[in-house]
Amino acid sequence: MTEIPKTKKKTLVHTTEIKVKFSDVDALSIVWHGHYLRYFEDGREAFGDEYGIAYLDVFANGLVTPIVKSNVNYKSPLEYGDTAIIETTFVNNPAAKIVFDFKIFNKKNKALVATGSTTQVFLDAQTKELFWTNPPFFVEWKNKWMK
Amino acid sequence: MTEIPKTKKKTLVHTTEIKVKFSDVDALSIVWHGHYLRYFEDGREAFGDEYGIAYLDVFANGLVTPIVKSNVNYKSPLEYGDTAIIETTFVNNPAAKIVFDFKIFNKKNKALVATGSTTQVFLDAQTKELFWTNPPFFVEWKNKWMK
Amino acid sequence: MTEIPKTKKKTLVHTTEIKVKFSDVDALSIVWHGHYLRYFEDGREAFGDEYGIAYLDVFANGLVTPIVKSNVNYKSPLEYGDTAIIETTFVNNPAAKIVFDFKIFNKKNKALVATGSTTQVFLDAQTKELFWTNPPFFVEWKNKWMK
Amino acid sequence: MTEIPKTKKKTLVHTTEIKVKFSDVDALSIVWHGHYLRYFEDGREAFGDEYGIAYLDVFANGLVTPIVKSNVNYKSPLEYGDTAIIETTFVNNPAAKIVFDFKIFNKKNKALVATGSTTQVFLDAQTKELFWTNPPFFVEWKNKWMK
Repeated sequence: MTEIPKTKKKTLVHTTEIKVKFSDVDALSIVWHGHYLRYFEDGREAFGDEYGIAYLDVFANGLVTPIVKSNVNYKSPLEYGDTAIIETTFVNNPAAKIVFDFKIFNKKNKALVATGSTTQVFLDAQTKELFWTNPPFFVEWKNKWMK
Repeated sequence: MTEIPKTKKKTLVHTTEIKVKFSDVDALSIVWHGHYLRYFEDGREAFGDEYGIAYLDVFANGLVTPIVKSNVNYKSPLEYGDTAIIETTFVNNPAAKIVFDFKIFNKKNKALVATGSTTQVFLDAQTKELFWTNPPFFVEWKNKWMK
Repeated sequence: MTEIPKTKKKTLVHTTEIKVKFSDVDALSIVWHGHYLRYFEDGREAFGDEYGIAYLDVFANGLVTPIVKSNVNYKSPLEYGDTAIIETTFVNNPAAKIVFDFKIFNKKNKALVATGSTTQVFLDAQTKELFWTNPPFFVEWKNKWMK
Repeated sequence: MTEIPKTKKKTLVHTTEIKVKFSDVDALSIVWHGHYLRYFEDGREAFGDEYGIAYLDVFANGLVTPIVKSNVNYKSPLEYGDTAIIETTFVNNPAAKIVFDFKIFNKKNKALVATGSTTQVFLDAQTKELFWTNPPFFVEWKNKWMK
């Protein structure tokens, strides 16, 4: 009997909802494109709250994790009154980086609203020095959740 | 001949311009009401840059000056493409407070767009302790500009 | 025996919670003062959703209700990680205006964070003409909820 | 004698400056990453004002041009007090799209702060129908500036 190798890693996904605010929509009555990076941040933080890797968890470990790259693809607009579903997926990779993929859906019709991703690096909170390898805190976190 | 008493203190006023951004207007195509506090802040900082009392000047003196009170009266809307004229007036008063009055005008027709004011107090930047009397830095500043 | 007149009207209050976002805090690590008008708007909309007087309800009746006055008193700061409790109270008054009072509390210690109010007027959504008396929609709404 | 082909098209570049606002910086005292899309918009609009292709010019031709794609690479932080130089380059291409590249520099030390790009499509302002070929307005604009 052949044992199936346990190579399939767990995929961490978190889903959260955001009601579109009046101050989020622009003169075209749709969510202004720049606000999606805030929606991504909301998704990332909701993910972090569930999996213990939110901004304050990271900061408690003496680290900050600034964004070094972001991209958004806008597929269909969100209007005032809509609710956005933010799906945040942790993208496992060996580099000393935190990569998340995002999908935003419109709750009312499940239309895909936007996709995108963000990449973060690790800095020492005091010295602002860059980590070229994963800090122990993050290695432990991966060991806990990625097996 | 009667000498006119020199009781009239100098009034410090500063005027700056802000072009309305696309991301400033809401679904009604007018500047969203919440952004006026940012316009006031822009006016306050432009005033501070001219008179040496901007955020970083204050901070260099070991102080921070959080807002404790704000009010806005909205008179006529600003639209995308308009330019706002922010008139910032320092309101001299004996209390350990910084009070500014603001008037916003529409550059194209000089219509009064909004009036308002903000009140700030002095805190020690480290201890966050409140100053009940004016800090020396501010006393000096007033002596320089208010006579 | 004189009957005591039933003049005491119902007070409409609604309470909603907002988690402070990373993008809400400023360089002092506290919620930037200008964001409280957005918190008030969130409270007003949550109130409106419950009592059928949200922006879209009003718009469906051919009206828009711009803010003509706002004020905020800042009592204690909110930090990143905090949750704000927004208490929105409808202030009944005979004028053709919608007045709300707001109280914001810090969920973790129930400290009063801020108080304030906003005043809105009624405009015809098409002609932008001001209503000097309460529009029928609002009279009905008051009859329903204020008795 | 070999004629040098006239394939080199004019490159349109526009440069504008933005002073970092207090409300632009986050708890790390650097400009919050989401604001760069607003800086790009400022650059795009300043470009548009110079070359007659700003939002209102486009709208006057019955068109709106929503963003369908954006990306930002963050190279070095901007702090409060800094001034950003936004360099906006029109990227000529045959598709029915408007593509801009952006470079942001820190005025004080000329450090590269961020790079990125945005892609816009053309919609009929009324019907919201997508243009699969360049609208006449834009063809004319290109003929004028790209030769």
